[in-house]
Amino acid sequence: MKEKNENNDKKIKIIPLGGLEKIGMNITAFEYEDSIIVVDCGISFPEDDMLGIDLVIPDVSYLVDNKEKVKGFFITHGHEDHIGALPYVLKDLNVPVYATKLTHGLIELKLKEHNLLKKTKRKIVKHGQSINLGGFRVEFIKTNHSIADASALAIHTPAGVIVHTGDFKIDYTPLFGDPIDLQRFAGLGKKGVLALMMDSTNAQRPGFTMSEKLVAKTFNHLFAENKTNRMIVATFASNVDRVQQIINTAFEFGRKVVIQGRSMVNVINIASELGYIKIPENTVIEVEQMKNYQDEKIVIVTTGSQGEAMAALSRMADSTHKTISIKPGDHIIFSSTPIPGNEKAVSKVINELSMKGATVIYQDTHVSGHACQEELKLMYSLLRPQYVIPVHGEYKHLKAQEKLAQEMGTDKSNIFVLQSGNVLQLSKEQGSIIGQVKANEIFVDGLGVGDVGNIVIRDRLVLSENGLIIVVVGIDKHNNQIISGPDVVSRGFVYVREADELMNKIRNVAGRSVEKCINNNISNWGKIKATIKDDMGEFLWKEMKRSPLVMPIIIEINR
Amino acid sequence: MKEKNENNDKKIKIIPLGGLEKIGMNITAFEYEDSIIVVDCGISFPEDDMLGIDLVIPDVSYLVDNKEKVKGFFITHGHEDHIGALPYVLKDLNVPVYATKLTHGLIELKLKEHNLLKKTKRKIVKHGQSINLGGFRVEFIKTNHSIADASALAIHTPAGVIVHTGDFKIDYTPLFGDPIDLQRFAGLGKKGVLALMMDSTNAQRPGFTMSEKLVAKTFNHLFAENKTNRMIVATFASNVDRVQQIINTAFEFGRKVVIQGRSMVNVINIASELGYIKIPENTVIEVEQMKNYQDEKIVIVTTGSQGEAMAALSRMADSTHKTISIKPGDHIIFSSTPIPGNEKAVSKVINELSMKGATVIYQDTHVSGHACQEELKLMYSLLRPQYVIPVHGEYKHLKAQEKLAQEMGTDKSNIFVLQSGNVLQLSKEQGSIIGQVKANEIFVDGLGVGDVGNIVIRDRLVLSENGLIIVVVGIDKHNNQIISGPDVVSRGFVYVREADELMNKIRNVAGRSVEKCINNNISNWGKIKATIKDDMGEFLWKEMKRSPLVMPIIIEINR
Repeated sequence: MKEKNENNDKKIKIIPLGGLEKIGMNITAFEYEDSIIVVDCGISFPEDDMLGIDLVIPDVSYLVDNKEKVKGFFITHGHEDHIGALPYVLKDLNVPVYATKLTHGLIELKLKEHNLLKKTKRKIVKHGQSINLGGFRVEFIKTNHSIADASALAIHTPAGVIVHTGDFKIDYTPLFGDPIDLQRFAGLGKKGVLALMMDSTNAQRPGFTMSEKLVAKTFNHLFAENKTNRMIVATFASNVDRVQQIINTAFEFGRKVVIQGRSMVNVINIASELGYIKIPENTVIEVEQMKNYQDEKIVIVTTGSQGEAMAALSRMADSTHKTISIKPGDHIIFSSTPIPGNEKAVSKVINELSMKGATVIYQDTHVSGHACQEELKLMYSLLRPQYVIPVHGEYKHLKAQEKLAQEMGTDKSNIFVLQSGNVLQLSKEQGSIIGQVKANEIFVDGLGVGDVGNIVIRDRLVLSENGLIIVVVGIDKHNNQIISGPDVVSRGFVYVREADELMNKIRNVAGRSVEKCINNNISNWGKIKATIKDDMGEFLWKEMKRSPLVMPIIIEINR
Repeated sequence: MKEKNENNDKKIKIIPLGGLEKIGMNITAFEYEDSIIVVDCGISFPEDDMLGIDLVIPDVSYLVDNKEKVKGFFITHGHEDHIGALPYVLKDLNVPVYATKLTHGLIELKLKEHNLLKKTKRKIVKHGQSINLGGFRVEFIKTNHSIADASALAIHTPAGVIVHTGDFKIDYTPLFGDPIDLQRFAGLGKKGVLALMMDSTNAQRPGFTMSEKLVAKTFNHLFAENKTNRMIVATFASNVDRVQQIINTAFEFGRKVVIQGRSMVNVINIASELGYIKIPENTVIEVEQMKNYQDEKIVIVTTGSQGEAMAALSRMADSTHKTISIKPGDHIIFSSTPIPGNEKAVSKVINELSMKGATVIYQDTHVSGHACQEELKLMYSLLRPQYVIPVHGEYKHLKAQEKLAQEMGTDKSNIFVLQSGNVLQLSKEQGSIIGQVKANEIFVDGLGVGDVGNIVIRDRLVLSENGLIIVVVGIDKHNNQIISGPDVVSRGFVYVREADELMNKIRNVAGRSVEKCINNNISNWGKIKATIKDDMGEFLWKEMKRSPLVMPIIIEINR
């Protein structure tokens, strides 16, 4: 009894550094005394108003400040929102990374691009295996998801066991590999689970996510019905089971497979090297060989299922693809659903493809990778956790998970809907948020990390809405007289060629501003610039209800 | 028999000037000899890549070029995508406008804003009534839609009858007013319909659009279950029947109604003036009076159901609303579904509201205003048209309508999936596309109409992605030497304060460019500018993988 009582005092800290405000950027630190381990390290994609930003990574200041404590990263699966920030973060934190084989392969690909392969210690872990690190033992448990080799983690800590599901669904009949290891979850539940951190993506959806078998059925049906047409299938590059399925169906129907899109080629290469995709001999051909085969002998597997402007399918749709043109009769299968925010882009590609005479199919061609309510309930029944921490979702998803946990018997006071940066402390005796650490978003634009912030983004927003007007004035250094200009240049504002009169008016307004300053003996450039800005802003709003960025430039001339 | 044969020769032209590439901007001209009538005159909302554009209107050059032929506009209903461009177009074409009472009231509101009320002839038409104009007789027929007073038009022409459904659904049990006049459609069908132009919005959806009764049921249920909470209902301002329903439910449960949002206030005012909304005495109160009532006595009806950043509900959600703050316990009903493209914005508002402790409800709280497949099939059965022209939809919707028409027995060669600008000529003997007229999109930005085009938009796109760098160089007019600069200024590029080193490098690159030109005796300013642009572009891409807009400005100084 004594030992048990002692354990009751032990306290573990859970600190999500991202991933709780929207889908993406998953990263959570677990801290016990002088050890920290981190689960996942993902990016998120920029919101519509983050103009020009390529991707968003988490602020890991807390980890860097506690460098000596950080023991390693444990990665649940190989999606961008779980591995994408690793190369950025590992530059500051040189610690080992633990993952299953395919996940590890995808991480290696990233590290290679960033020249971090040699520097970074990595270890491949098998499902069922545990890693001892610092005060923790981390056990990898098989789950199902829309990428192979996905894992839940059972994090054994002195304060108790924390189960982190990663992204998961329950597929009793996956096409490849094993179903989720429900027995192990039951075993953990039997012994007692301190806390459950569970995927909330589909917590608002009733029922059970369909098995991958449904998609297999649809594919078979479509290939059997359209024996004379060229087939083009768009899906997520990372969904290797889906790609395998397409390859198998192609093989069965005697078709050759052409692979399009850089990420599709990369992922298929790695997955087949590691044995996660098996390609029958002579099935995959190069795009150049396509001309040697009739349409009915071809399947093209391509990226672009989200309507991404630069992806292979979008290029085919708008006739900018180097080698593949869409023809009447082509059958194009979207094996995906649009991620929220991409609906219009996907719709655009579908319309373009249809206009070229192609048939576009998007019904029963995809199943979600995330557990719906009945699956989540099953997990609660097996694990019976003391505390619940909804993860992976927007606030509305986390709240839906909270509601579900309550329905399954968890007391509301034992459910923590956290925000990124919260420090949650748990012991068997009690749980509470005891602090807050920095958890910002860092913007990556090109090669720049963090050099674009709110001010820059705000300027981009103004520029994008109304363009800019530059006013250039040359002023004599000695007598403060205008000796050049004001000249007015604009971009993104109006068709200048047809707006002579307007540009003249603008020039006059600027001229009057400067003269007003000179007459009032204002020689402070900041004040002159501010006057030009104000006068111009007022004029433009009155005249045309627009607010372009006005940039006065004063050149001091020494003559 | 003679007369019939004569009629077989008569030819009518149908010329859609917008509305066939996407949802929005509906406008179609019907031309017979020296008469043209126009059905609808709508705007569309800008696509994501039309930066800074407020709205898009159709190019009516064809109508302006044939001014003397144009007899008038017939408007099917009062939605923006059917009436919004009228004030712009009527400036060039002063012809009468025909519409039913509520539609007419909403048009008046627009004309007043644009100072066109006095100048424009208008006539209110009743359902069942016909207007003789030029070679046409236009009959207004009652339909159901998500705005009251919607009409289909039977256009009686010497070549035959053309039925244009407008936007419609079949509601056997509308809450207010009559169901659609199916008997009249049957009568027209019996006598013979030359062509049917039918709403394709929901042509991909099987089944039957639910009746407004469903929403009434949900509202009753929600109000009965949440007697102690403040209720906030967001819906489209133009959906006056829905607003009536909310007011009735409020009255029944003894609540006062507060109306929020400029368009909501406007539309309710007009609708109630014209008798389309009946407000029980003492039911609607001003927002300032709200403090005199307990939460359980209040319903707020608001705009913002599409997540529009400036709308009342969004302001409540992000705490920028002047008078209303969201509190825990508030029940917020979204009586709408997100229009494609708005999903993320709506999601954001829902999350913000939930974070403030409100309960957000969006299930069974809305029904579509457009007919699904079974309704469309019913119309085909009643009308049995010779030709079919799918309207109102993206290409995929039009194609779905085409498929449906074929299933209902129309020969594919008699179905015309048109593009805006096509001139379709129909007679009982044959139908074909005989030409093409101008049918562009014209951008409206602030008060400017058509002064922003592709070049301006392209500049805005570049600016929005990467910002700009301005290089200013002063050159001596006489000896071609640099006497000022190069100075470098940037906006929307990087945090300049933390990028001293980078800005220095950029200045050096610019300096070397100019010197290179001077050393090579290049004095053509265009060439110097191009050199700076090229060198800078190359440097920035190599250094940071970014492509800001580079604007060299050369000042010629006379010293």
